[in-house]
Formats: sequence, C-alpha cells, structure tokens
Amino acid sequence: MLSRADATARLTEAKHEQGLDFVDLADAIDRDEVWTASLVFGDVSASETEARELCARLGIEDEAVVDALQREPYKGDEEATIPSDPMLYRLYEIPQVYGDAIKACVHEEFGDGIMSAIDFECHVDRIDHDDGDRVRITYEGKFLPYKKW
Amino acid sequence: MLSRADATARLTEAKHEQGLDFVDLADAIDRDEVWTASLVFGDVSASETEARELCARLGIEDEAVVDALQREPYKGDEEATIPSDPMLYRLYEIPQVYGDAIKACVHEEFGDGIMSAIDFECHVDRIDHDDGDRVRITYEGKFLPYKKW
Amino acid sequence: MLSRADATARLTEAKHEQGLDFVDLADAIDRDEVWTASLVFGDVSASETEARELCARLGIEDEAVVDALQREPYKGDEEATIPSDPMLYRLYEIPQVYGDAIKACVHEEFGDGIMSAIDFECHVDRIDHDDGDRVRITYEGKFLPYKKW
Amino acid sequence: MLSRADATARLTEAKHEQGLDFVDLADAIDRDEVWTASLVFGDVSASETEARELCARLGIEDEAVVDALQREPYKGDEEATIPSDPMLYRLYEIPQVYGDAIKACVHEEFGDGIMSAIDFECHVDRIDHDDGDRVRITYEGKFLPYKKW
Amino acid sequence: MLSRADATARLTEAKHEQGLDFVDLADAIDRDEVWTASLVFGDVSASETEARELCARLGIEDEAVVDALQREPYKGDEEATIPSDPMLYRLYEIPQVYGDAIKACVHEEFGDGIMSAIDFECHVDRIDHDDGDRVRITYEGKFLPYKKW
Amino acid sequence: MLSRADATARLTEAKHEQGLDFVDLADAIDRDEVWTASLVFGDVSASETEARELCARLGIEDEAVVDALQREPYKGDEEATIPSDPMLYRLYEIPQVYGDAIKACVHEEFGDGIMSAIDFECHVDRIDHDDGDRVRITYEGKFLPYKKW
Amino acid sequence: MLSRADATARLTEAKHEQGLDFVDLADAIDRDEVWTASLVFGDVSASETEARELCARLGIEDEAVVDALQREPYKGDEEATIPSDPMLYRLYEIPQVYGDAIKACVHEEFGDGIMSAIDFECHVDRIDHDDGDRVRITYEGKFLPYKKW
Amino acid sequence: MLSRADATARLTEAKHEQGLDFVDLADAIDRDEVWTASLVFGDVSASETEARELCARLGIEDEAVVDALQREPYKGDEEATIPSDPMLYRLYEIPQVYGDAIKACVHEEFGDGIMSAIDFECHVDRIDHDDGDRVRITYEGKFLPYKKW
Amino acid sequence: MLSRADATARLTEAKHEQGLDFVDLADAIDRDEVWTASLVFGDVSASETEARELCARLGIEDEAVVDALQREPYKGDEEATIPSDPMLYRLYEIPQVYGDAIKACVHEEFGDGIMSAIDFECHVDRIDHDDGDRVRITYEGKFLPYKKW
Amino acid sequence: MLSRADATARLTEAKHEQGLDFVDLADAIDRDEVWTASLVFGDVSASETEARELCARLGIEDEAVVDALQREPYKGDEEATIPSDPMLYRLYEIPQVYGDAIKACVHEEFGDGIMSAIDFECHVDRIDHDDGDRVRITYEGKFLPYKKW
Repeated sequence: MLSRADATARLTEAKHEQGLDFVDLADAIDRDEVWTASLVFGDVSASETEARELCARLGIEDEAVVDALQREPYKGDEEATIPSDPMLYRLYEIPQVYGDAIKACVHEEFGDGIMSAIDFECHVDRIDHDDGDRVRITYEGKFLPYKKW
Repeated sequence: MLSRADATARLTEAKHEQGLDFVDLADAIDRDEVWTASLVFGDVSASETEARELCARLGIEDEAVVDALQREPYKGDEEATIPSDPMLYRLYEIPQVYGDAIKACVHEEFGDGIMSAIDFECHVDRIDHDDGDRVRITYEGKFLPYKKW
Repeated sequence: MLSRADATARLTEAKHEQGLDFVDLADAIDRDEVWTASLVFGDVSASETEARELCARLGIEDEAVVDALQREPYKGDEEATIPSDPMLYRLYEIPQVYGDAIKACVHEEFGDGIMSAIDFECHVDRIDHDDGDRVRITYEGKFLPYKKW
Repeated sequence: MLSRADATARLTEAKHEQGLDFVDLADAIDRDEVWTASLVFGDVSASETEARELCARLGIEDEAVVDALQREPYKGDEEATIPSDPMLYRLYEIPQVYGDAIKACVHEEFGDGIMSAIDFECHVDRIDHDDGDRVRITYEGKFLPYKKW
Repeated sequence: MLSRADATARLTEAKHEQGLDFVDLADAIDRDEVWTASLVFGDVSASETEARELCARLGIEDEAVVDALQREPYKGDEEATIPSDPMLYRLYEIPQVYGDAIKACVHEEFGDGIMSAIDFECHVDRIDHDDGDRVRITYEGKFLPYKKW
Repeated sequence: MLSRADATARLTEAKHEQGLDFVDLADAIDRDEVWTASLVFGDVSASETEARELCARLGIEDEAVVDALQREPYKGDEEATIPSDPMLYRLYEIPQVYGDAIKACVHEEFGDGIMSAIDFECHVDRIDHDDGDRVRITYEGKFLPYKKW
Repeated sequence: MLSRADATARLTEAKHEQGLDFVDLADAIDRDEVWTASLVFGDVSASETEARELCARLGIEDEAVVDALQREPYKGDEEATIPSDPMLYRLYEIPQVYGDAIKACVHEEFGDGIMSAIDFECHVDRIDHDDGDRVRITYEGKFLPYKKW
Repeated sequence: MLSRADATARLTEAKHEQGLDFVDLADAIDRDEVWTASLVFGDVSASETEARELCARLGIEDEAVVDALQREPYKGDEEATIPSDPMLYRLYEIPQVYGDAIKACVHEEFGDGIMSAIDFECHVDRIDHDDGDRVRITYEGKFLPYKKW
Repeated sequence: MLSRADATARLTEAKHEQGLDFVDLADAIDRDEVWTASLVFGDVSASETEARELCARLGIEDEAVVDALQREPYKGDEEATIPSDPMLYRLYEIPQVYGDAIKACVHEEFGDGIMSAIDFECHVDRIDHDDGDRVRITYEGKFLPYKKW
Repeated sequence: MLSRADATARLTEAKHEQGLDFVDLADAIDRDEVWTASLVFGDVSASETEARELCARLGIEDEAVVDALQREPYKGDEEATIPSDPMLYRLYEIPQVYGDAIKACVHEEFGDGIMSAIDFECHVDRIDHDDGDRVRITYEGKFLPYKKW
C-alpha cells in the first residue's frame, strides 16, 4: 500500500519530468487547477476515473498510485500553525487584518452561520492591470446557518 | 486623544442605535462594505473626508472620533494566532488544506513572488444557488515578484 | 448596546436567583437544554421570540438583554486552546485517543468529508445503569462531502 | 518485539489488501467498529483471543503482531495539540463552542464530577435524512463524582 | 451571585485575620487539609453543611459565600500550562522524569487503564528524618480499566 | 558508545523476551520498581554493580549496555510539555486542580521552600478496596527551605 | 490583607521617593542586594525582623506591608516563558548556548544530580576592567545527587 | 564536509573510549572546561591550532573533524525553549525567580544596558562545604551600555 | 512614582495635541527620530537633560514625567512573540527568509560573533524612486566576537 | 528531481571544497552576497543563466542542481518561530525593542502602509570604526500604501 506522501513524490516527479503544469493536469481530468494541485499534494481524494486519467496523463502505470489517489487523506498537519513562507503567510495575514470585517459582513448578509470550507471551491486567476497584474483568489462556499435544536 | 478601541465602541454603538448595516455606511463614504467594516473595527485608516462622512452618517459630532479614524492603526494582535470562532476559523482552515495548492498555482502562473496583502482588496458576495446560497470571498492583490539584487 | 458578556452575567444572575435549571429555560423557549445553555453563555444567537421568551421566564424586562441575545456572537476564544478543567478536558481527550478511529469510521461509511459542526445538534442525557449512571453526549451533524470543482 | 507502529502498518496493509472494512474486522472480534479501528491504530489493547481473531481474519500469522496488540499503548501524542485535519478539527471545534454548555448541563443533571473517558464507549452511526444523511457520534461514559476526603 | 474568585478572596481574608491554618479549617468541616484548601481556592465544591460550617468557623455570615462554595467550579485554567513557581513546578518535573516509569508500573500491576484523578484523594504529610524532614505527597485514585465495547 | 536510547531498546527487548516484570528486575538489583523502570527507560543512572546485575538478570552480556546504564542521562524532553496519554495526563491534571492547595499545605507545614524532586523517591502501590482497587502513587522528597543570603 | 503585588508597589514607591538603592536596603537588613531586591519584588519571603527593618528603613509604618513580606510568595509566572527584555533574555541565552556544556561539567565533577536553585544564592558584582567593566553574576547552589530507592 | 553534529559524535566517541574528562581536553588546548565542552558539543568555534590540538589529544587524525571545529556554528535550537532536564531547567528557574532582581541590581550598579553573553565567559566550580559541596556557576560578561543616537 | 506606561500616555497625548512629529521631538533633544520614538514608547532611557528638553518641547511641566523618562525600562514583552501587524511582521519575515544568509555573510566577513543590538543604532529613511519611494531601515551595531576563555 | 535541500547540500559542499566565499559566488552571477547566500540556502530562485553561472563557478555539472535553483522555494519554516542562535536572535530582538518606534517613524514619513519584504533588498556591510568595526545591515523595500476599495 503506497503511502500518500510517496504517491505525491511519484506524481510530482513525473509532472516535472514531462514539463507539465497543473493546468495541463487539470485539463486531463476536467477539474480546476487548484483542486488538481491539491490532489497531487494529497489534500483531496479522487474518483477512480480521475485517478486513472491523472496517472495516464503523467505516464504512470503503477496501480498503487491510482489506488493512493482514491484514499481519504489526512489533511493539513498534526497541529494547526501559521507558516512563515511569505506567499502562504499572506493567506493568514488577510484574516488577521480583515477577518473581523469579513465575519461581520457575512453575518449582516446571511445571519448567524459560516461559509463552508467543505462544500467549497477555490480559484486562482490572473487579472491584467496596467500597474501590474493582480492575483485573484476566490473562496466560495455554501452558507451554513447554525442549526438550532 | 481618543483610543482607537474607544472610537470603535462609539462607532459600533451609534451604528447599532440607528439600525444601520455596513452596506449603509459603505454607501455614505463610497467604499466597499468590507473595507468600511475594517475601518469601524480599527484595522484601516480613513482620509479626513471619509472620517467626517462616516461620523456624519452615524450622527457622531465628536472631533475626537473623526481624528481617531485617521490614525494609522496597530493591525491584528500582539501575536498571530488562529482563532476558534468557526466563521473566522474557516478562513484559516482553507489555507491549511489548500494553501500549498494555491501557492503552486500562483507560482506557475506568475513566477516566484506573492499576492500582496497591502495593495489588496477583499469582497464578500452572496451567490444565489438552488441548493442554498453561497458566500463568495474574493481576495485580490497585486502580484509582487521577488526583487533580486 | 449591552455587551454579550454583560448579557450573560445578567441572565446567569437571574437564573440563579430564581433557582431555575437550564431544563426550565429550555422548556420556556422550546429548545434543548444544551442549546439553551449555549445561548445563555453567548455562543449561539436567538430569534426575537426566543429572546423575549427567555427574558420573560427569567423576569428580565430590559430590552438591551433581548437585543443582545439576537446578535451573532464571537464563538470560542481568540486562540483555540485545550482547557484544564477536567470535565471540559475529557471532551478533548476523547478525540486525542479515539479521533483517528472516528475519522476512519466516518470515511468508510460516508466517504471523504466531515460531520458538520454547524448543521449540528448536541444532547446530554443520563443513562441509568446499575454500576453507576452514565453520561451520554451525542454529537449529530450533517455529513458534508468534499466538493470537487 | 514488534513496535506498535509497525504492527499498525502490518494490520493496515493486510486490511487494505483484502478489501476489508473496520466493520468486517469488528464482526470478527465481536466488537464495535470504532473500538476495532482504535485497536488497529494502536490506541487500545486487546485480549489474547481478540488479538488472535483479528490476525486470523486478516490472514496474519506472525506471533509478533498478536503480541503487540496486547500491549498497553502510549495513547495520543507527546503533547496534546489540536490538529488541522477538518474532520478531526470538528471534534475539537464542538467543545470550543458548546463545551461550557455541555459542562453546565452535566453538572445540573449529575452534580460536580465528570463523564469518564476511560469507562467509556463511542459509536459512529449514519442517520438517514431527506436533506442529507447525518453522522451521529455518541460519547457515553460513566459519571464519576468528585470524591471528597 | 458572588463569583467564585470573590468568595475565595473573602475566605482567604477571614482565614488570615483570624490566624487560622488549613488544618484548623479542615477540622471544622471534618475533611483533609488539602481538600479544604482546594475548597477555599475554589477548585472543589462543598455540601451545604460543609459550606455553612466553614463559614461559621471563619465568622462569615454572608449567605452569598455559603452559596458560592456549593457551586461546581471551573477547575484549573483556560489552558493547561506548566507554572514556573518552583514548588508547583516540582509537581510537573516529577512526571517529566518519572512519568513513563510510573505508567509502566501501573500497567504491569493493573493492566491497561488509569489512576482516576476524580475518584481520588491527595494528602500532604511531614516525615521526620535526621537528615532533614521530608514532604510526602500521596496521590490515591481508583484504578479505572479501559472499557471495551 | 551505545546511545542511551539504543540501550533502552536492548533492555526492553530482553525484558519482553524473558517475560520479566519491572518487579523482577527491581529484585535483581535491590531497588524499587519505579526507579528500576526509570533506569530501563534511561531517566536515571546506575552504579556499575547495578548495571551489571541488571544486565545479568536480563541475559545481556554486552559491555556497551553496562556502560550506557552508568552515564548521566538527559532527562525529559527538549521542551517541557503536557502529554496526551491519559495515564500520564492524570499526573499533570492533579496539580492543575490541586496544585495551589498542595503548595499552601506544604508552606503552612514547612515554611517557604519546596519538596525536592532530586532527593526524592516515588512508589506505586495497589490498595485493595471493595469498590475497586486503587492506585497509590507516593512522592516523597526532602523539604528544602529557601536559603537567604 | 494586602496583596503581594500591592506591597511591592508600596515598597518601590517609598524606595524611589527616598532615593535609596537596593544596596542601602540590603544593608538595613544585613542581606545581599539581589536577595533584597527579590524580597521587594515579591519573589522571596522575609522573617518578621527583616520585614520590620526593611519597612523602618523605608519609613513605612503600615503593618499590612510588614505582614505581606512574610508570606510565602507565588514565584515566577503562571507559565514559564522566555522574556524579550534584553538584559533578562541574556540570562536565558547563556543556557541556550552553554547549557549542555555546563551540565556536562557538573556531571563530570559531581556525578548525576543538580545544582539546587533553592539552597542557593546569587550575587551581582562589578569587575573593573580596562576594556570596559564587566558584570559577574554568580549562581551558587548545593549539589544534590539523585537519590536512588 | 563533515556536519557539525557528526563531528560532535566523533569527538564524544573518542573522548569516551579514551576515558578523558573535559578537564583533560581543556588542558590540551589551554582553555576552560566549559568552553571546551561547548566546543565538543558544537556551540563555539576553534582556531586551527585549537582544533588540531584537541583532535591530537583525542587521537583523531581526520582533517574533516579539524575543519568542522573551525566553522561558525548554529548555536542553540531553531526555537528558544525551556528544557525539562532538571539540571538544565534550574538554569532557567533561577532567572524565572531572581531575574527581575538581577536586572535591577545590574541597572543600579551600571545604568541602562546589559551583561554581554558574547564578550562573556562562564565557569563551573566545586565549593567544598561541610553541609554538602556546592556548585558555583559564574557568568561574567562585559557591561554594554545602550548606545544612543 | 509615575509608571512608564502612564508617562508614555502623557507624552503621546501632548505630542498629538501639539501636532508634533517624532522628527520635531528628535530635533529638540538632538537625537534621531527612531531613538526619540523609542524613548516616548518607553523602550530606552534618557539623561536628565534629554528628559527635560523633551518635556519642555511638549509643554509638560510635571517632574514625574521627567523622572520616568530616566528610569531603565523593561523592554519588549514578558514573552518574545511575533506580532501580526503587517508593518511589524515584515521586520520578522525578513530574518525568516534571509536570516541564514545574513548570518553567513556576517560570519564570512567578521568571523564567529554577532552584531550587537545594544551598542547599536537604527535609522529609517525615505529613498526617492521613480517606481515608488522606498523605505530604508538601517541596523548598525558593533561586531562582537565570541570571547574564548 | 533533486530536492531543494539536497541541492543546498551539494552547493555548500562544493563551495567549501573550493574555498570560496559568498562574495566570490556573488561576483560570478553579478548579484549581492546576501542574495547569493539566500540562493545557496534555497530561499530565493534563480534565472537559468544565474543557475548555470553559479554551478559553473562551483564546478558542478549536474543539470539537476541547475534545475533545482530555478524552482520557487518554500521559504522559512512550517511555523514562524524565533530562533535561539544569538546572531539570528539579534535580528528579532531589534524589532522587539525598537519595532514600535520604527513603525511610528514609517507612518509619520509615509502614511499607512508597510515596507515591502518582497520588492526588497538587503545588504551586509562592514563599517570601520576605531572602537571596533561595526556591522551594518540595510533593509530597503518599496513603501506599499494600504489600498482602499
């Protein structure tokens, strides 16, 4: 049984050797590039069809990799921490500064509840701009009102 | 000199008494509701015009509040931590799960650098959906390539 | 505008003076005792009717309390921590010991996803037993499968 | 002497190769699936009979595995932490939000004491529901009143 | 409703003014001095009789104190931490050094389970010794075997 | 030079193969079982005689193990932390709840100082009891008064 | 009953008003300046004579201060942390860099044990030097060998 | 290029095989034993002469070790933490209890500044004493006044 | 005796009322603006002349403020932490990313030692630039070689 | 695909064998020594030309190293922490003491915003000085004003 970490190493190696981007892999399985990258990194799980198509695109014939891609992963780390890598850190700095405001706006619009991070999708887009192109990261999740009982 | 925390208390109190939403306040100063909420909570600073218009809309005539809104705030907390409030936590759970994928997609599209959290804007929108409306949170910041020297 | 913490103090004081249990308050608003206790402690929000009925049962006539009960609360603390109170600690010790097993059983039964803690309810029951009565705490939440995109 | 971690690897590998679920293993040793999964993961210890039956069901003939399953395990980690995996995190988010309410309800019903996490059992069940099936996790432990002396 | 912390302050003040030791208070309520000190500090709860007798011994006539002593306390702190006070620290240094050995000896003698910290008592004694008197701290708790299910 | 961790592995393996308890090993070197277990786990150091007798009882003829047992160990971990294993955790929960009371009783009896954790011994005993046998853990250390200068 | 923190404030205020150094106070009670400063800051306890003489030297006539100085203090903080003040930090940086070496030299000279921090004294001295005077901080504590049992 | 950790292992092994103390090694290079132990543990760097003499004394002829001893080391750990080993912990407990007093005495004697931990030396000495010998640890560093600009 | 925090509040209030910048205050005492701001915030100490001139410039006639400015401050916080304010965080992000490189370059240029943070000065300058002005922060401290002994 | 850590090992080894400084490597690729050291340590990424020239200077002919140098690195660690190495620590001590002053001076000069740590450069210089040479570390980054929206 191939570990999820070893499967990631195999997939990353093949992607690198073939000079493919996550966009290419996403096309092969008809998914978004962020989700596809998450699959390669072992944070989401694939259907058997997705797993086979991804391996086919990467020229991987080992059933153990196909199998590993379908297992429910352990997501994140043993302890939730804020990383120091600057690109990653910005994703944590934003809610440090604007989190209370985002929470208040969600509550005013929707009431007491949350944006789901499970029934959720996320996109990365380039926005052309004369003063320098911009990165747009979109979080979109179902609003879940707090159930009362 | 009114502290920023006291100014927030005064603004929140007035907003509550008058039954206004952040959308109403945003209209009064011609800004987005997330930015406006951040201003009320003391995480961003206003121009004098914005400060006056916000106070006017809220019926606050105290110059000390107008003044406090223009000061550069201390943003966030003395130590960066991950809060347990579920709506806020989701904003940290997303990069815990999808952060590596987002970073990889940004790098493939833009090269080595980051999305700015300063030359940055953020929006909260409602997306109507038959299976339940969805919250869309958009982060958009200028791509900053790492300078070499 | 009464702070949520002050409202909790008012409600707790009245409950104590009148010798009422959370079960009594739950009956008054037709909710479960756990949810009702969460409302008193400021972790969930009430409808106007619930807020009025709760205050009526407690003999509180102050509109500020009725109002505070309806506001979306900041839940939990600024940082997620494991408390040392032994009754509370047991709720964290259980997933420390059995968490991986629970996660595996949920995945085998439902696939990749989570039990919602929002579309969720929780009950505390006494189970009579000859060797000493038992506490049953039931967590029940909607299964949310991970969305793909 | 086979380490407990190596025994877990052996058991998990065999379970995967034979396509068995924890429910199947639980049937083989006449235990609940959560307890059985905990045994496989090395968080509880088995009697010799249970250890032999589990190995038999998995086709493992190595006495070292039978032996390892009977040893008292080191449960949890060297430091109690809150993990970031979303399914696991929900088990900690619930007491972050509802913990004070649960504690209060236990005390009103039983007096000063705790729900044991040792004289304890835990179940995972599927609850069919038209709006989406639900996960029910039941914690049941003996009430232990604080001894005075 | 007197807070538990205020009750502790009242009790400590009275004890100090009257020059009483915890041993004196323990005699008054027919309990051990450690338990009695825990009651004064707000870590355990008393019966009505115990509460009345303790207040009587201390010359406190306020019913609010009698009442506070009977409430189930929040024990310990919001986060379990290791204090730096040297007398307290030694109680944590001992399991840092000898904890694994203690755990192993308990398991060899009793099997898989724990010493209860609830069905538990604790004593502090002076042991006369020519090379300097010794402090004996005795922890005694019911052995609780792990339940299987 | 055999590392202390490797020596522990060798000793534990031999103890397991020969089906010996820590009580047996303690008899062989005429020490208490808790101290003997600490020696095996590498938290205390032995005299040459003790080291030889322990190895003899376990059938270990390797001088490197005899040597390792005599070295002053690094005790505990690089950072003092509270473990999540329930048996170990109880040893920390007790001072979380009763620590202030223990400290106060020691000070009333002995004055300002501490119980030594070095000039110290510790015992684990079984106390027979009709309602279930009890674990008694005794900490006994010399009282050290704070020196003034 | 004056709190220890309030006593410290009273003592510090009087010391400042009278322009006295800790050396002056140390002379008054015939103790070292470090110990005397620790007494003022509330980290050690005085005899009645010392307490009276210290108050006399400072012109404090309040018996509550005399009393507070004799109580056993809670030393240090609720959690052991490394402070960022540079003078204090150096006291922690030294064992971060040289701690393993100090430990090894103590063990080679004395065997397995520790330098007591209780049967201990500490001095601060100025060492004149042409390249700039030097601070000498001397820690001296009784060697305590680990007891075996 | 031999890593500093591997060099430490080589040096420690040789020291052990030859039955040498740090005092012996210190004599060989004409340095103090604490500094010499720090060199062996990889916390300070040697001149080429010192490196050669140390290796010569230990019978090590490998140039890679000589080379490693001269490299500027990474001192301490990736994160400053307080260790639980009792001998090491005492070095941190002392400033937890007496740190404020030490800081105050340094300031009264020298003014605003620090004791350098770089232009610094440290000694371990045995002080004979009838009631048991004592460990004296001397920290001596240049006083550095805060520069103004 | 005015606390340092209260003195800061007094100074900040006066500076704000009079519309003065730190540059103006720096001119008044003939110091750099960064050092002057540190003095106002209570992180450095002034000579009597500097204290008087600063108060004179701010129109403060209270001797207690003059006095407070001359006291040796407790610098930083009780625990060294990384703040979340983005401007402050950048000062920590830089050594997170470039710290190893800076350390290596210092060592190659100067040998084993450090840049002093005490015999140190720091400047903030604006660098005009066509693509947007730049902030230059200069740290300059005496090189301190590690002393051997 | 060579990991970034392995590439660093290869580069460091070659640099050491050839006796080159970072200044030499910086000359070879026409970059600053700090940036070049960051490249070797894996904290920044090179263009293909830079990667080839660096490898050429070091006599490395392996394409895998050239390739690794061009990949976007994971910068810093999984969790932002303050290291205990004294040279590195000083880079954190400075903002602990002077950070608030630096922030205030930046705001007074530039308004609400930050110094970029991305559009940024850093230099290490030796400043000759009669009282001992000084290390100058210059941080220079573009001022980024907070965007409003």
